[in-house]
Amino acid sequence: MSVSTPKPERIPSREENFSEWYIETVRKADLADYTVVKGCMVIKPYGFGLWENMRDALDRRIKETGHENAYFPLLVPESLLLKEAEHVEGFAPECAWVTQGGGSELEERLAIRPTSEAIICSIYANWVNSYRDLPILINQWANVMRWEKRTRLFLRTAEFLWQEGHTVHRTEEEAQEETLKMLEVYREFLETELAIPAVAGEKTASERFAGALRTYTVEALMQDGWALQAGTSHNLGQHFSKGFGIKFLDEDNVEKFAWQTSWGVSTRLVGGIIMTHGDDRGLRLPPRVAPVQAVIVPIYKAGIEGELKEKCARIAKALREKGVRVREDMRENQRPGFKFTEWEVKGVPVRIEVGPKDLKNGTACLVRRDTGEKAFLPDAEAVERVAELMVDIQTNMLETARSFREEKTSRPANWEEFQATLEEKRGLLSCPWDGTEETEEAIKGATKATIRCIPFEGSEVEAGEVDIYSGKPAVARVLYARAY
Amino acid sequence: MSVSTPKPERIPSREENFSEWYIETVRKADLADYTVVKGCMVIKPYGFGLWENMRDALDRRIKETGHENAYFPLLVPESLLLKEAEHVEGFAPECAWVTQGGGSELEERLAIRPTSEAIICSIYANWVNSYRDLPILINQWANVMRWEKRTRLFLRTAEFLWQEGHTVHRTEEEAQEETLKMLEVYREFLETELAIPAVAGEKTASERFAGALRTYTVEALMQDGWALQAGTSHNLGQHFSKGFGIKFLDEDNVEKFAWQTSWGVSTRLVGGIIMTHGDDRGLRLPPRVAPVQAVIVPIYKAGIEGELKEKCARIAKALREKGVRVREDMRENQRPGFKFTEWEVKGVPVRIEVGPKDLKNGTACLVRRDTGEKAFLPDAEAVERVAELMVDIQTNMLETARSFREEKTSRPANWEEFQATLEEKRGLLSCPWDGTEETEEAIKGATKATIRCIPFEGSEVEAGEVDIYSGKPAVARVLYARAY
Repeated sequence: MSVSTPKPERIPSREENFSEWYIETVRKADLADYTVVKGCMVIKPYGFGLWENMRDALDRRIKETGHENAYFPLLVPESLLLKEAEHVEGFAPECAWVTQGGGSELEERLAIRPTSEAIICSIYANWVNSYRDLPILINQWANVMRWEKRTRLFLRTAEFLWQEGHTVHRTEEEAQEETLKMLEVYREFLETELAIPAVAGEKTASERFAGALRTYTVEALMQDGWALQAGTSHNLGQHFSKGFGIKFLDEDNVEKFAWQTSWGVSTRLVGGIIMTHGDDRGLRLPPRVAPVQAVIVPIYKAGIEGELKEKCARIAKALREKGVRVREDMRENQRPGFKFTEWEVKGVPVRIEVGPKDLKNGTACLVRRDTGEKAFLPDAEAVERVAELMVDIQTNMLETARSFREEKTSRPANWEEFQATLEEKRGLLSCPWDGTEETEEAIKGATKATIRCIPFEGSEVEAGEVDIYSGKPAVARVLYARAY
Repeated sequence: MSVSTPKPERIPSREENFSEWYIETVRKADLADYTVVKGCMVIKPYGFGLWENMRDALDRRIKETGHENAYFPLLVPESLLLKEAEHVEGFAPECAWVTQGGGSELEERLAIRPTSEAIICSIYANWVNSYRDLPILINQWANVMRWEKRTRLFLRTAEFLWQEGHTVHRTEEEAQEETLKMLEVYREFLETELAIPAVAGEKTASERFAGALRTYTVEALMQDGWALQAGTSHNLGQHFSKGFGIKFLDEDNVEKFAWQTSWGVSTRLVGGIIMTHGDDRGLRLPPRVAPVQAVIVPIYKAGIEGELKEKCARIAKALREKGVRVREDMRENQRPGFKFTEWEVKGVPVRIEVGPKDLKNGTACLVRRDTGEKAFLPDAEAVERVAELMVDIQTNMLETARSFREEKTSRPANWEEFQATLEEKRGLLSCPWDGTEETEEAIKGATKATIRCIPFEGSEVEAGEVDIYSGKPAVARVLYARAY
């Protein structure tokens, strides 16, 4: 989709226009852009470097929990999609269809995978015969496509990149355990790597994955007070194994349908990082996944360029030896101030300035992106300090995000307060719910807020508590929010 | 494509039926299989583990030579494909077309990328304005689709995985240098990581990439005497920059069209590994990319299972500390002989057998997959030796493949000898060529052999040498072969 509105002179502040701030930050930081293909983005090298680090960190966890990667076909014959009734109803409307290939019309149209349950289950049906074939613990990194009408870079695009785990188990208990295990992998990954504190919980029936028995989610809170579904893990029960005939002969010689799970996170998480950590000067990237963790900018002065360059190279080498991903910005056709702004927009955690005085004093100036704090340190200490800052900044970013979320989590006492809070403060609203879809729908209709999840912690209701909207007896305390 | 022929009892030998040996080896080693989607394969975890190691080894080289990864859209509007005449002619016939999306017919049909020059050039046109924007050095790892009629696992499938580099340069010289640099990256990668010795050279006009100015190739020789194009690097000249309007204002203030390259290797290389190194017992994997480098198999005996398991775990731990990718096959419901065969088929470079005698003697038995050689060594030495074997086996495999290629490279003296050699010995035929497409076509028509390349080394002709077929004066010595 090509965008016709002219670029503003500067990035608007988050306060002024969060959504424009977001898009302009993505563009100015050179993460991604729209293309001539409707709803499809190009992920530029800087954005892709960020995604590669995120992917590697998550891939490590997926493998450590016993899963292996594989690759399944991009195209899904329509007849396969039809095998699970809820699934096709959920996904068929947003499919892109291949109808011609190799110069002729196809007999059956093929969907570009919107998700791979159908194609993978058709293959698993051949792989599973005996209880000895179980569990199957496979993950796939792939592109998927959902024909979205309204798109937004990273958050909602027709094509996106993701991982999707697809596992098969012998028992219901094992499948449930896997579902929760992978949700916890996501929660810990978000917290440790992306510095995003997420609330884990279960989705209500209306927000369940099409075809799942139960869907679990990790929900993050963005700086505009809207929630972002950051990852989901589904217990598929036997819905798909029955549709696709995934059966096995159990140890007791009885043929049984298998139990399945699926779980995924996507490039949408890049959007989550931006909206959790960014400020009015642009991105702030968590050091653990930042493509560039420290940038060195020389303050050139006529006559000593050579010495400055040498010193920058020396610092860069020392930092690389410590495992820091460092970039030297030695451009001579740009002023230092221009470079500072550029690397601030790009969210590089630490800037190292090396000027004529530093050359004389044997020092360097470190500037933290998260706090703006400046420190002049002797060379050797500076190198040590940068390595320490990778940890400090990561921790500080998580703490900041956590405080923000806590501050923005409310417990409105009644329906009026609910509405007022949602308008003025936004954030997560913890409220007693009567457990009905009617109430959920009514609240959504009135306020656009949806139940993000029934959280694992803090969902207990006290005796006599009633639904915030209907006044009927409450079954659980749930989290409402407006969401991306 | 589901295959209707029943599986044979055993894998036929390479001599009996190379093509059946190939497919059955792929299947028995659990690398990949066909699916219900015509021409599309599933890459199973063991095959994907191999690909991941190959990908990581090549990705490192691509980054070390200054390139960054990015991601471009899967779909290519037909109007973009049409912008380079030769390109569309070459690729349109084998495109899969999306004609419906989000419930309605599209105004313009979209091809699933058969390669990404068209979509990427449409984007580069926006990125390039000044000579300061150059060079652009970007690579993409992606799935692509070409609607092939006859498919074969890894070697020719409708969908495959690959990397495609797309670079933009200021001058013709720089583009040519990049083209050759990446060809050399491929050649060295094949040799070092896959133990595949490849011949580097230029393609003739008839084998050029659709839209390229010059195409270069690395050609490998398979054990059946057929050649495999293992990777290509294209100097695109200004063909695409003119079609897509990739222009820049040069330092001299003159607007110029940019110079481009593209280069790629794909999952087809997995087929290359199988056909270069496999034997009648299955795969033989080069240690550097083998998903499992050493497998430990205990020879259980009643009463000492616990001690055996402990010893296996100890050896595994010591090997992991040395960076060896080790698997412990502790299954109790399978005989050792069954396991030996299974891991031989899977091509694991070293097998470590631990039996009752080894327990008593403090030894372990190492078996090399490449030579079959056995050695009983004291525990500590065994661990050291396995690490050494990773290097020795890799070297031996490369040497074996190189000797085979040399032995199978002929210089037939005349047309009769050419035909006889091709029938009886096969392999690479180094022959003087008159430089015409007519001769190339005539030889292809008569023998199915094509010019694989004009090799960088050994293409000089002596004064008076004539074309092997036409008898006309030769311009270069080229390599003919039948090819995959």
